[in-house]
Amino acid sequence: MDEKQLDIEVENALVQGLAELAELVAIPSVAAQPDSPMLAGAEKVAALLRTHGMEAHLIPTNGGPPVVYGEDRSAGADAPTILFYNHYDVQPAEPYNLWDSDPWTLRVTDGIAYARGVSDDKGHITCRLMALDALRATHGGHLPVNVKFVIEGEEEVASVHLPEWIEEHANILAADVCIWEFGGVDEAGRPEIICGLRGIAYFELHSQTLAYDAHSGVGGSLFPNAAWRLIWALATLKDVNEKILLPGHYDAVVPASEYDISLLDALPNAAQEAYLKQEFNLTEFLGNATGTEFQRRMVFEPTCTICGLESGYQGAGAKTVLPSKAMAKVDFRLVPDQDPLKVRDSLRAHLDAKGFHDIEIVFLGGQRPGRVDPRHPMVTLAAKTAKEVYEKDPLLIPLVGGSGPIHPFAVGLRQPIVTCGVGYPGTRAHAPNENLRLTDLILGAKHTARFLLALSKGQGKG
Amino acid sequence: MDEKQLDIEVENALVQGLAELAELVAIPSVAAQPDSPMLAGAEKVAALLRTHGMEAHLIPTNGGPPVVYGEDRSAGADAPTILFYNHYDVQPAEPYNLWDSDPWTLRVTDGIAYARGVSDDKGHITCRLMALDALRATHGGHLPVNVKFVIEGEEEVASVHLPEWIEEHANILAADVCIWEFGGVDEAGRPEIICGLRGIAYFELHSQTLAYDAHSGVGGSLFPNAAWRLIWALATLKDVNEKILLPGHYDAVVPASEYDISLLDALPNAAQEAYLKQEFNLTEFLGNATGTEFQRRMVFEPTCTICGLESGYQGAGAKTVLPSKAMAKVDFRLVPDQDPLKVRDSLRAHLDAKGFHDIEIVFLGGQRPGRVDPRHPMVTLAAKTAKEVYEKDPLLIPLVGGSGPIHPFAVGLRQPIVTCGVGYPGTRAHAPNENLRLTDLILGAKHTARFLLALSKGQGKG
Repeated sequence: MDEKQLDIEVENALVQGLAELAELVAIPSVAAQPDSPMLAGAEKVAALLRTHGMEAHLIPTNGGPPVVYGEDRSAGADAPTILFYNHYDVQPAEPYNLWDSDPWTLRVTDGIAYARGVSDDKGHITCRLMALDALRATHGGHLPVNVKFVIEGEEEVASVHLPEWIEEHANILAADVCIWEFGGVDEAGRPEIICGLRGIAYFELHSQTLAYDAHSGVGGSLFPNAAWRLIWALATLKDVNEKILLPGHYDAVVPASEYDISLLDALPNAAQEAYLKQEFNLTEFLGNATGTEFQRRMVFEPTCTICGLESGYQGAGAKTVLPSKAMAKVDFRLVPDQDPLKVRDSLRAHLDAKGFHDIEIVFLGGQRPGRVDPRHPMVTLAAKTAKEVYEKDPLLIPLVGGSGPIHPFAVGLRQPIVTCGVGYPGTRAHAPNENLRLTDLILGAKHTARFLLALSKGQGKG
Repeated sequence: MDEKQLDIEVENALVQGLAELAELVAIPSVAAQPDSPMLAGAEKVAALLRTHGMEAHLIPTNGGPPVVYGEDRSAGADAPTILFYNHYDVQPAEPYNLWDSDPWTLRVTDGIAYARGVSDDKGHITCRLMALDALRATHGGHLPVNVKFVIEGEEEVASVHLPEWIEEHANILAADVCIWEFGGVDEAGRPEIICGLRGIAYFELHSQTLAYDAHSGVGGSLFPNAAWRLIWALATLKDVNEKILLPGHYDAVVPASEYDISLLDALPNAAQEAYLKQEFNLTEFLGNATGTEFQRRMVFEPTCTICGLESGYQGAGAKTVLPSKAMAKVDFRLVPDQDPLKVRDSLRAHLDAKGFHDIEIVFLGGQRPGRVDPRHPMVTLAAKTAKEVYEKDPLLIPLVGGSGPIHPFAVGLRQPIVTCGVGYPGTRAHAPNENLRLTDLILGAKHTARFLLALSKGQGKG
């Protein structure tokens, strides 16, 4: 039987997979830090793709590190085509002193691998390559499906140049399904199939009212205060009931459908609520949300979060200074079908209308939200194959709170998105001691391979 | 003629005065910094008072550094009594690299002395002692008036313990007039006679909503955001037209009288406006204030200044964090007859009434405003003797924007307050390269001596 042999070949691919993962994590490809070896990271990934039988090369972006593009289309025009979206950039490793071992050296202990990027996202690249090796091994050295890889170098810095790159290269990116860069299991080992990501629009607001800070005894009633200007402006953005006050901000919002609600209802709400309350020392959530409404509110509501505030004197004691400058960082999470560029324009128009022409807006980046219908046959197939591999009922998650470059794939290229992967709640992506359980690596690769095998057999069609 | 000889004796006192000033500034008596040699500073001052013929000793405060109390009451019960209020503490010298020479070593170049405290306030102590020496020299070794010194060690940290100390020692502090710790000339060399100080109430507002910072993608619509709570709370304190919204905040305000307005009208408004506009790069002042209204608004309006804001992420780029903590520093300047303790209580009641029970208020200190009637005979005498010394019409200033412990003297001890001193607009008190022009030191000492001499002749009575 194909599936059993496939599983065995995945397991056989582990040793080489770990050796390659060690080479990948040894390159500190931190997109956020200017001197990082991004090109070396890209070249290593391209070389690995070639090692695994693909054509691969670097394609420049308009201002960022290159995208690694790889493909093996030898299965022919009648076979389905799968596009893998991944990234070779990683989060910074700082603070180093909180790591138990060097973040740029793969360490494997008690069945767990540690290093920066071991899960997010280099471990997922390894997972895909192990799955492809297993498929080749069970198909006489050939892949039974066509595959394409888009492995970018800016996912951790909001994929600034990727949407434009995808638009420009849409002609080579056609595929029947896109396998997203992440996935994995929940606390109970149930596989999670994630069907959407929120968008984001991130701004800095700046106020400057004076050439330099003044003495509050002199300027208090004569000089405009940058901190006051900023506070008054911010207070017009959202009311104490969490309603965002930008005109028309909710116009494009597509509410959760009845089917979405039924999916949220099936999630392990009580456990998640209890965990968050204990972790953050909360007695209740905003709006007293609980149960399905807790899940709905977490992801289907647009948000406006102040991420940072800075002005004047922050040290100990009473310094009587009147600040010349003030700054706020503000993050809007967007739900389908909100658009970060419209939020940018509407924020400017709103501040102007409220008399805050003096508040400067710096747009630090945006991503559009994107979803795939959880009833899409590809999602159903991903769930079915997950159940076979994990032997547990998968969780279908209609939307998650975070953001990523899903829109250019899901909407721009009209590709259904599915997730399968190697993550788990303790993976510590973005944090010190990022880790990967080898059992998750094997299960993720098996799931990937099984999904591709099922596609090769004509499953997953509408 | 007494006055001419007095002037000569003041000039004769300069060399010893500078030598003593050098000893004073060599002690870094920075009240704000915990390891400062405050006791050594107090003892040095007491020793100097003894050198100049006074009895002097340190009197403890209830928790702060001691007050240096000195007196020479040998003029007898029929002679008037003058109380000098000064302070031996100084501002921190930081940042050291902006000083042209060591801040704790007196340097005299081109007729200007440089060091921390050379003006604020050790130079004023020297000024008083030079004046007393000159009076003794012209009166057979005796003072023609009784003098008392109250030299505290916490003026730069809001004189926290002085009001209580004055209340406890009121029995020894009786005097006909109090000579304040500062004074001097404006840009044009005109002597300024200052007749009042605003009060202050300084607070930190704290919000904490979570055990630690959360990810904005998860918590954005479920977790209370400390920065938002603080912003909403602050926005209830003052509106965009600068009206303070605490209930009853203006009830105790005594408006500027017609006479006050006439004094403000006589000040060099145009020059001051032009200077501030250029210095701070302003095209207009709040409320378009100009002329007499500019002066009135500067000092006769209560203020509410945000001095500092801090929350969440302040570094470069887009960090999607939901802050668990936020802090604001807020300074209310008070005009007669507002009371900082009432502001403290009203701020708590207001935040509670607006639903912000969760905002913690830390009261960092307060001082009550205080004034003397600019037509008081003592003020008139200070102005008359100033005109004789400076040979320019003095400026009578009914109130200044800054704060100090004037209330316990002016109201608690019912003493008229007058100013005479050694300051000028370039003195850089509180800043690097604090300096004292020796001509100002001599003029300030002459003014002090002439004022005391006039008192000894029976002038200044109602």
